[in-house]
Amino acid sequence: MQWVRPTLLLNETICRANIRRIVSKAAASNITLRPHFKTHQSHEIGRWFRTEGVDRCTVSSLRMASYFADDGWNDITLAFPLNALEVDEINLLASRVKLNLCVVSADSLRHLLQRLNQPVQIFIEIDTGYHRTGIAPTHHREIEDILRVISGSSLLTFLGFLSHAGHSYAARSVAEIEKVHRDTIAQMKELGDQYRSRYPQLQLSVGDTPICSVVSNYGDMTEIRPGNLVFYDVTQCVIGSCTTEQIAIAMACPVVAVYPEREEVIVHGGGVHFSKDFLRRAEGTISFGEVVPLATNGWGSPLPSCYVKSLSQEHGIIHMPTPVLKTIKEGDVLGVLPVHACLTADAMGAYTTLEGAVIGMMPKTS
Amino acid sequence: MQWVRPTLLLNETICRANIRRIVSKAAASNITLRPHFKTHQSHEIGRWFRTEGVDRCTVSSLRMASYFADDGWNDITLAFPLNALEVDEINLLASRVKLNLCVVSADSLRHLLQRLNQPVQIFIEIDTGYHRTGIAPTHHREIEDILRVISGSSLLTFLGFLSHAGHSYAARSVAEIEKVHRDTIAQMKELGDQYRSRYPQLQLSVGDTPICSVVSNYGDMTEIRPGNLVFYDVTQCVIGSCTTEQIAIAMACPVVAVYPEREEVIVHGGGVHFSKDFLRRAEGTISFGEVVPLATNGWGSPLPSCYVKSLSQEHGIIHMPTPVLKTIKEGDVLGVLPVHACLTADAMGAYTTLEGAVIGMMPKTS
Repeated sequence: MQWVRPTLLLNETICRANIRRIVSKAAASNITLRPHFKTHQSHEIGRWFRTEGVDRCTVSSLRMASYFADDGWNDITLAFPLNALEVDEINLLASRVKLNLCVVSADSLRHLLQRLNQPVQIFIEIDTGYHRTGIAPTHHREIEDILRVISGSSLLTFLGFLSHAGHSYAARSVAEIEKVHRDTIAQMKELGDQYRSRYPQLQLSVGDTPICSVVSNYGDMTEIRPGNLVFYDVTQCVIGSCTTEQIAIAMACPVVAVYPEREEVIVHGGGVHFSKDFLRRAEGTISFGEVVPLATNGWGSPLPSCYVKSLSQEHGIIHMPTPVLKTIKEGDVLGVLPVHACLTADAMGAYTTLEGAVIGMMPKTS
Repeated sequence: MQWVRPTLLLNETICRANIRRIVSKAAASNITLRPHFKTHQSHEIGRWFRTEGVDRCTVSSLRMASYFADDGWNDITLAFPLNALEVDEINLLASRVKLNLCVVSADSLRHLLQRLNQPVQIFIEIDTGYHRTGIAPTHHREIEDILRVISGSSLLTFLGFLSHAGHSYAARSVAEIEKVHRDTIAQMKELGDQYRSRYPQLQLSVGDTPICSVVSNYGDMTEIRPGNLVFYDVTQCVIGSCTTEQIAIAMACPVVAVYPEREEVIVHGGGVHFSKDFLRRAEGTISFGEVVPLATNGWGSPLPSCYVKSLSQEHGIIHMPTPVLKTIKEGDVLGVLPVHACLTADAMGAYTTLEGAVIGMMPKTS
């Protein structure tokens, strides 16, 4: 197989193994798996989860919720703070599926209620230390305000508490990931203990990719929502979530120029293909992706000290030490393991399997 | 007009004024304008150039060349190093339009010739100091190698030399931009003087947005290729290319959470909307966009000290000092001027004019 332009390759075998691993793990831990579909954004890959028995999902936008509802998903959590301006779309979607919304303030919920005409389920988002969105677990007055609004409306049902411990991404070892996890579930358990008498069915939803990759004990938690682990990426390797062999996607990038004196190779593969997240490498340099050799049956291990040092719109500049560079010429095609799989997938809009099948994603516009 | 989700607003009046300004300037400087369409990637906006008399364009990929050929553009320069793997698509396109390719090595061109069956025109790309791609102007042997391949094939015509002085983006004043320009055109003029006796019709193509925004004198250059100036962005303001009032796009972002104690506002608007380029602000902090108030007829001036400090996939975290923050609540919609218009447009896939019309772009997949 020859890829003549930037192509996002998907190794279906690795991807399905990643899915099976977390499904088994969730079953063994007796916890509900509600995978986050923002990473793959694909009907087809969603079905790979369904094949393994998964019947509910998480999304990051209402458009994405509609997209997956169109493929038969009927229990969907929108893990993003409620945007009451979208009430029309919420009504539409909640008339078709069980829609679970996340709330961070009573005001937003009151705003929603002005025009809500369908039943929806409510999670209260708790900030366990990431400090992006959510209510601090000690802010009982804010929580009670929301619970009052919920109990005052026949359209609203309280599901429980949800947290995204995104500070696990700052971890650089299994021990550091586990510390974030212990800290998060301790806070969530305390909340659960405080409210379970009033809400016996209370759910406690946690679990990003770093945590779900290395932890087996979820304590009193009832649900996990990892997303990235469907593909993994270089960042997850650095955090300690996965090995390079578990990364399921790589960009095929044609070589268009070779500069031996600069130890640089220029490929077609830029910001419109990878997006522009980067990672600081151990030696302090910035990397937008690690370089792997491509073969017909997939890709190999990262070429030592070869990485994408810079991206412009269509160009990628790869740092490549002379011994490797001597083996590369214009017209070759290199693989690049992405630093951030979610944004790279989003930028590309489709996958190509190693067998050459194209797998679609949610369109950018509708 | 209310925007209930992230929406890339386009002020058509500002955009058309930006187009008219560069068209007039090129005419006054007696230089050919071949605008780069990688910024807008839109048939409709391309037509706004055509209305002003522009009849040729620059693109950054062969797919983009085909897209604009489909809308009647028949003189297209692909300003990206020749990728001979795409020979089938090159043959197809060159049978329909005048296709101008950029070459950085004789080997790529030889590779192309193995299967080229249509006439194409060739620019040799010159590296005048940006050090991304191109041949150093003093490397006459490499240039002669390419010229020999060209003169050996009846399908190839030599057009001249092309340079992208991307190091102008490191400038932070008009004087610094002018220095890069003087330096670039001096090198290009010297090359031109060396080769014009053999190639009397020799073209010298330069001119990015910073340079084309502040310079009027192009010396012996024959063509300019600015792209970003169709929209401009915060980076161009910082470089000194434009004023804030000349920025033609802004993202409408609904406010979903307000955190007074952190002086932060959370909006729907993340890496999948803006891409993830950033800018270092004067005080050293990182900005992914500057915040403006929205109104039905457009947007106002940036709110002082309000900027997007962090982006995740769907969330934007805005730093907002208390006096401004006190005026903001959930359900409001803020505007964000992008740091990098090209990548933001690419991430969004469509524009919405202030009148509510949706303007399409090249699809991500075909």
